[in-house]
Amino acid sequence: MNADFINPFLTAVQNVLSMMAQIELKPGKPQIKKDDVARGDVSGLIGMVGPQTKGSFSISFDENLAIEIMHKMLGERPSGINEEVTDMVGEITNMVTGGAKRTLGEKGYEFEMASPVVVTGTGHTIRHKSEGAKLIMPFEHEAGKAHIEICFDKIS
Amino acid sequence: MNADFINPFLTAVQNVLSMMAQIELKPGKPQIKKDDVARGDVSGLIGMVGPQTKGSFSISFDENLAIEIMHKMLGERPSGINEEVTDMVGEITNMVTGGAKRTLGEKGYEFEMASPVVVTGTGHTIRHKSEGAKLIMPFEHEAGKAHIEICFDKIS
Repeated sequence: MNADFINPFLTAVQNVLSMMAQIELKPGKPQIKKDDVARGDVSGLIGMVGPQTKGSFSISFDENLAIEIMHKMLGERPSGINEEVTDMVGEITNMVTGGAKRTLGEKGYEFEMASPVVVTGTGHTIRHKSEGAKLIMPFEHEAGKAHIEICFDKIS
Repeated sequence: MNADFINPFLTAVQNVLSMMAQIELKPGKPQIKKDDVARGDVSGLIGMVGPQTKGSFSISFDENLAIEIMHKMLGERPSGINEEVTDMVGEITNMVTGGAKRTLGEKGYEFEMASPVVVTGTGHTIRHKSEGAKLIMPFEHEAGKAHIEICFDKIS
């Protein structure tokens, strides 16, 4: 997986959160390792299918960061991860993947998006079972951590 | 969502587990409700994209049932949900969706599958954020519960 393919997702995450919630995430060091596992309290996942490849994308948030995003967007601070928060995480997942899809489409990598799924549960882990390389990218914010994981079977 | 669309998934779950692990799951009552939430200790998820629709499928297992399936398949009983168990759940997810895909393709409903993602974490919940109806179907076994959830945006 090369930078051409990864950067559109990283940029889309930062753009979407900045635009929707005035949240500026500080990107950490991307890791391409088999034994890294994404972990969070609420995660959005989406499948991607194209003629050249198939894969999956996830974005995981610490509960406190998810609540802070909600607070910045709606002015209300829920006491925990409720249905509104999971709707918001599903929408962020769609917007980030949609943003990356547009950029990648312009570079000739086409894919279609499945519908998002949102997982909740304290400290759950996510493992992408694609055959290809996977990339985990952490982001820092004073309210908590987020990270994204991108995995594709092959890029032709 | 009609029975033509649901039954291939139900049949595939029972066939795959019977074939791979001689595990006979007893199907419960399917529920089509907005407020039902799938819950389990280990879940496989997969996105689906076709010309007529897009959606997502998940299968969730109680830890004890996942371990029992592993035991029946390999003769070994892991002490908890390890990487072998998550690999197995990813493979089951692929096989069930692949089985349903073949049956539905014969009926004229075509879709492609993304790559599976496996979630672990005690009592995590899964919410499919598709716009269309979603179906939750429980299964019982003496070792624990499983359930599947199928969600599609629209079936044309």
